[in-house]
Amino acid sequence: MKILAICSGGMDSTTMVYDAASKKNREVGMVTFDYGQRHKIELEYANRTAQRLNCPHYVIELPIGSFLKGSALTDRSVKVPEVDYSNESLAVTVVPNRNAMMLSVACAIAAANGYEKVYAGMHGGDHAVYPDCRPEFVDAFDKAMVLACGVHVTAPYVSLTKMDIAGIGARLNVPYEDTYSCYNGREQHCGICSTCRERIRAIEGVGLVDPTEYEQH
Amino acid sequence: MKILAICSGGMDSTTMVYDAASKKNREVGMVTFDYGQRHKIELEYANRTAQRLNCPHYVIELPIGSFLKGSALTDRSVKVPEVDYSNESLAVTVVPNRNAMMLSVACAIAAANGYEKVYAGMHGGDHAVYPDCRPEFVDAFDKAMVLACGVHVTAPYVSLTKMDIAGIGARLNVPYEDTYSCYNGREQHCGICSTCRERIRAIEGVGLVDPTEYEQH
Repeated sequence: MKILAICSGGMDSTTMVYDAASKKNREVGMVTFDYGQRHKIELEYANRTAQRLNCPHYVIELPIGSFLKGSALTDRSVKVPEVDYSNESLAVTVVPNRNAMMLSVACAIAAANGYEKVYAGMHGGDHAVYPDCRPEFVDAFDKAMVLACGVHVTAPYVSLTKMDIAGIGARLNVPYEDTYSCYNGREQHCGICSTCRERIRAIEGVGLVDPTEYEQH
Repeated sequence: MKILAICSGGMDSTTMVYDAASKKNREVGMVTFDYGQRHKIELEYANRTAQRLNCPHYVIELPIGSFLKGSALTDRSVKVPEVDYSNESLAVTVVPNRNAMMLSVACAIAAANGYEKVYAGMHGGDHAVYPDCRPEFVDAFDKAMVLACGVHVTAPYVSLTKMDIAGIGARLNVPYEDTYSCYNGREQHCGICSTCRERIRAIEGVGLVDPTEYEQH
């Protein structure tokens, strides 16, 4: 089976790529979006995974930042939250319909290149604040995509926590030094934004030695 | 109600914009995609409609042509068909998942700007060859978008023929000189490609005087 995995370069989607590639009879491709995110440095990390696993890697420009303002992820005038990953802290990072836009493009690329499924790395911790990370959205979108272009959409980690995912990564020896999580997008992880905090908690929580260099920890 | 209408600058979607704007208590915005189509000149025509109706007009760059090759609409090495509009002639003009990509972005813009519905101008003649123009796709996509961002998707002409739409346009006095249909994308309509042939048949079929200048007719 040919699977096209949306990989941001973060922990969750990178683990998903390694996980898919570790199974028999899977041919895995990767797609990464350059959508105007301030943490664009994550693209280089996704590329490391593609190189290591020797996967086809589609890097797609989707200039969401140019037509949607007001999210801390794409608009530099909005401050990235520096508290624990929670519903309030994440609210400013919502990019409306981000996953639907990315999934539609990923399905188009899949259809044009003979992939049967698109994998997306949403997890349980995202449900409350990001409606397009919920299982009912993934199911509805899967139905629409099968009708539109014959490609299935699956989110294998949609019911897992980030700690569960780190557990899978630990088992598969995913090199987390090849992943990037910080919403601030500087060379080193800041260590204090909501996603850095969540990263630290998950990696330490499963007993891994954290290979990440943080500005503050 | 605030409606965001996807308008390519062609006859069908332009008629749909006039139709929506003619109803009471509707506030209509337009979104037009610059997706690398060779008939990019249609953007100027969409702009004429926005000017005439004084609607907000979002012109969005969605560089589909850069990541999907092989469709006559985005790839200049593929010849535009010059026979009647039919399933065979249209096959080379398929851009996989084009409507899903456009609808996802339109819904994001709608959600960010307080529009409740997105209108798309697919019609009955498109069903056979473009799977993402069929009513079952529109229904499935509507469900997914309501879950993802609270915006409804409607295709008011999905069961009509192009001639039916031209009939509505005739009743509403839509200025068809402000619309562009030719897949070749030159300044004048070629008059012989499949979409020009279909345009001529619809305009003449409802007894309008065709305001279009064709290279050949």
